[in-house]
Amino acid sequence: MSFKVVHKDKNSKARLGLLNTKRGIIQTPVFMPVGTQATVKAISPAALEEMGAEIILGNAYHLYLRPGTDLIKKADGLHKFMNWHAPILTDSGGYQVFSLSILRKVTDKGVKFQSHIDGSTHFIGPKECLEIQDILGSDICMVLDECAPYPCEYENAKIAMKRTLDWAKISAKVKLNSGNKVFGIVQGSTYQDLRQECAKELVNMDFDGYAIGGVSVGEPPELIYKTVEYTLPLLPDCKPKYIMGMGTPEDILESISFGADMFDCIIPTRYGRTANAFTSQGKLNLRNARFTQDLTPVDPECSCYLCKNFTRAYVRHLFYANEMLGPQLLSIHNVHFYINLIKQVRVAITANEFIEFKKSFLEKYKYSKKEK
Amino acid sequence: MSFKVVHKDKNSKARLGLLNTKRGIIQTPVFMPVGTQATVKAISPAALEEMGAEIILGNAYHLYLRPGTDLIKKADGLHKFMNWHAPILTDSGGYQVFSLSILRKVTDKGVKFQSHIDGSTHFIGPKECLEIQDILGSDICMVLDECAPYPCEYENAKIAMKRTLDWAKISAKVKLNSGNKVFGIVQGSTYQDLRQECAKELVNMDFDGYAIGGVSVGEPPELIYKTVEYTLPLLPDCKPKYIMGMGTPEDILESISFGADMFDCIIPTRYGRTANAFTSQGKLNLRNARFTQDLTPVDPECSCYLCKNFTRAYVRHLFYANEMLGPQLLSIHNVHFYINLIKQVRVAITANEFIEFKKSFLEKYKYSKKEK
Repeated sequence: MSFKVVHKDKNSKARLGLLNTKRGIIQTPVFMPVGTQATVKAISPAALEEMGAEIILGNAYHLYLRPGTDLIKKADGLHKFMNWHAPILTDSGGYQVFSLSILRKVTDKGVKFQSHIDGSTHFIGPKECLEIQDILGSDICMVLDECAPYPCEYENAKIAMKRTLDWAKISAKVKLNSGNKVFGIVQGSTYQDLRQECAKELVNMDFDGYAIGGVSVGEPPELIYKTVEYTLPLLPDCKPKYIMGMGTPEDILESISFGADMFDCIIPTRYGRTANAFTSQGKLNLRNARFTQDLTPVDPECSCYLCKNFTRAYVRHLFYANEMLGPQLLSIHNVHFYINLIKQVRVAITANEFIEFKKSFLEKYKYSKKEK
Repeated sequence: MSFKVVHKDKNSKARLGLLNTKRGIIQTPVFMPVGTQATVKAISPAALEEMGAEIILGNAYHLYLRPGTDLIKKADGLHKFMNWHAPILTDSGGYQVFSLSILRKVTDKGVKFQSHIDGSTHFIGPKECLEIQDILGSDICMVLDECAPYPCEYENAKIAMKRTLDWAKISAKVKLNSGNKVFGIVQGSTYQDLRQECAKELVNMDFDGYAIGGVSVGEPPELIYKTVEYTLPLLPDCKPKYIMGMGTPEDILESISFGADMFDCIIPTRYGRTANAFTSQGKLNLRNARFTQDLTPVDPECSCYLCKNFTRAYVRHLFYANEMLGPQLLSIHNVHFYINLIKQVRVAITANEFIEFKKSFLEKYKYSKKEK
């Protein structure tokens, strides 16, 4: 069995699952730290293991361009190259092809583009994209998709969705090394009928799992939640459901209540590099003057390396002194916060208390935010 | 007994010692990683412990200006503030007062200067300087000195040396918290008679240990070695002898052969941040194209976290991708290399084989450098 739902919350659509990959079983819901360029920014693999990360992300577009698949193949795959031996999900890089590359030309066969690094010309189609991920040795590969921006005219959203489907059809037929899973991606911007059409077609292609792409790309939270809420039930419950690029703790909890299983986001590491800490009492900007003499832990309820050993005043000092240890410690803390939040979610679902947990977490998290 | 020489090499002046501080006994020779601003750059205290660091440096000038002694006092000292519980030696910051501050005015009483951070005006004399280090909770405090630049006219070097002596006299009388050691600093630039006069006067003041300052400030290696070689015997053998700001592996080995006990240097961390690795086979610049597909460890003879788990090609990739993990891992490796070199030195001295060890280390280290 590739994916198994082991428990359903009695009062919401939240669920516990087990996702079987060739490198071990992942518990869902799961938060996957983002390691775009063969490293989760500022965090060593040892620190990721220590905080209980079960699976991380890589990005096919980035790794294909640098350091290149030749080197990673020679290194016997991405896992060995970056010294991460648990599962890796690789994003196809569809989003990056559209957001980073220059002079791109999109056709039904794929995308011809120039590298954002050195201007060299490349072509990646749905087949090439999966082959790259196969060389990387990814445990879960994402199909190439076209992610519409927000806002997006209906006609343009429809063209991108149709292309995503065309590419998915090709993707579904690509032969990969045994054991690699392939997930399809639902596009359709904020248009319900487009999402419905896309989901229906993808489900017919029988992927190992399904992602919702093109959410959390700039639209207001209500619209994110609405899209996630009506799209998730279009996907089969016996498959893992992944919301790409999501999100804030609020977004993730909301989506779990609708039945989402997998999440990834750059927020915890990016915020960590800019002195912003996630805590049980809301977000804190540790550059703020009120932390100058604050000798309490960043989050008194947190058990990460930072919170067990250092203070808010110390972290603030590190950022003001431009010391790299500041971003390092706060990236560890923030990713630990996300992983620990999901651990608490799992306990709550097991006890059929997810709704209560979500309410009490958000009350504390949002109340304190207003207070400060 | 505050310091004890436990073994003397039979064929050189190299020696093994035990330096007793209030936070434990340090074996000498010792390399002290530099943690100027309450952090060894890019390395967590846990990683420092793991690599066997026994004592680290702090800097009174920097910490006085930022985060300030008020906060560190409130935090119950520098050790707690930065979560480092083994000994700390604090540099007086004499060097920084002269190299970093703006609009400084030096008198026999001390230095009036403007902060390099915010332009605020401050005064630090020899007494204030030790009081700052006392508040920091330093285990070994350095007296305020005037470090002459290189090159330096004889008359100017003499003035700086005389002032260093005047300040040392005041320093010797300052009452500190029990258990803090105070080291005197020999100045005199490259002039043997000035060094002699300075050392003689300082020894009369009976400090807990003696440092040679104003070496490794830009002069050629031969001149460094000459100064160190004639100055060390002017200091009492029953006291620890510390060469400030030294140096390359070659410098350190040479100075140990003359009887030096303690070293600190920013080189391993600074080089680590710029992709330069110290290895048993010489220095490597990992940005070099020849490492693009090099899947061997940075130093095959090294047992640090980097060398056990990652390759030269991976580190090169991290630097080209501007990933913070590159500087992090290479800083760990380089400091580990220095600490491990000193561990090997201790073993060699114990066996009365220091000269042989030095020769074979340098042959391999320098030969490979030429080869590449």
